[in-house]
Amino acid sequence: MTAAVPPEIVAFLQVETPDEWLDEAEQRLPELLLDHANCELKAASTALGFLYRYPDRPALAQRMSRLAREELRHFEQVRSIMEEMGIAFERLSASRYAGRLRDSVRREEPAHLLDLLLIGALIEARSCERFARVAPRLPAGLGKFYNGLLASEARHFQHYIAFARSECGITDAEIDERLDALKSLEAELIISPDADFRFHSGTPTVVDPTG
Amino acid sequence: MTAAVPPEIVAFLQVETPDEWLDEAEQRLPELLLDHANCELKAASTALGFLYRYPDRPALAQRMSRLAREELRHFEQVRSIMEEMGIAFERLSASRYAGRLRDSVRREEPAHLLDLLLIGALIEARSCERFARVAPRLPAGLGKFYNGLLASEARHFQHYIAFARSECGITDAEIDERLDALKSLEAELIISPDADFRFHSGTPTVVDPTG
Repeated sequence: MTAAVPPEIVAFLQVETPDEWLDEAEQRLPELLLDHANCELKAASTALGFLYRYPDRPALAQRMSRLAREELRHFEQVRSIMEEMGIAFERLSASRYAGRLRDSVRREEPAHLLDLLLIGALIEARSCERFARVAPRLPAGLGKFYNGLLASEARHFQHYIAFARSECGITDAEIDERLDALKSLEAELIISPDADFRFHSGTPTVVDPTG
Repeated sequence: MTAAVPPEIVAFLQVETPDEWLDEAEQRLPELLLDHANCELKAASTALGFLYRYPDRPALAQRMSRLAREELRHFEQVRSIMEEMGIAFERLSASRYAGRLRDSVRREEPAHLLDLLLIGALIEARSCERFARVAPRLPAGLGKFYNGLLASEARHFQHYIAFARSECGITDAEIDERLDALKSLEAELIISPDADFRFHSGTPTVVDPTG
């Protein structure tokens, strides 16, 4: 059974993953899994970062702690699958996608918190979309696992958006304006040519076969 | 029902917690809980640190990820209790205990990994002992919660020791020698006078009532 991209995710993202990326992912499963495991670990660290930076916000702290636990469980699951497939784990540096989104975070509060939360929502939404799109092209067991992750990512996306609205003391109009700008940046990173293949990379560049 | 200190923990630690510390803890419940919550968060971060520093060791990575999840769940539980009791959370700097143990970690590998693991075992063992000793002096609900944490800490202690023996490629004799030295330092930190009250602080200094 294949899960579709949830409609709220389709509505949230400005562009869908190009087919070229899906073709590439199908051919580069070990790299996809390795980057995926790295992403889960980074997502857990990012969630913990909220606990350290905003320790006095109980609702945010409890949610982010639970979120970190869930990402760590996924990390363990991906590593188990890698072990079974004989794929070694190594740490990867930040991808273009994560790096460019992170570079756009403003420094002053409460804009800083807002940007972190909105970017968190975007990354979760994109991950959800990619899991749904790529799952039917994967070996059955892995496809099933990816379909199972969909629901988590969709929930995380909702949590990030809810905190952006409740924790920052910024008007909805201002939040929407900032969100539109970040959505455009995210869409550009997904569509534009990207020489690296990663879980969140852009359209694969065509390698010149005569080159 | 009161859980006793597990015999393997009694055998492992060189000294038991002084009664003066238990008397103090009974009187300073908010500070005890605040430091405890901070310790759980730091324990989770420390476990994640192993994933970042030693990414290519699958058994260690899986265990430390699970350990981080367990510490985060405890963090959430302590914060919930604090919420109910109206105690605000704030981040605390490292205690004398954690700071001095950390300062003793050697830099070169594999001594670095060995020291991190042995200190992890010591902190878990001491936490277990303190939970067991302080639980009977606490309000019923909290005492029950602390008794429940005992089993986790005793398990974590065993995991750290097992990894020290399996992951470092150091002879048992050398490990035992280093462990004895660290146990002596740990015992000194527990016994010696300590002006700060923390979850792992030493013997409380007597405040001169005429001072």
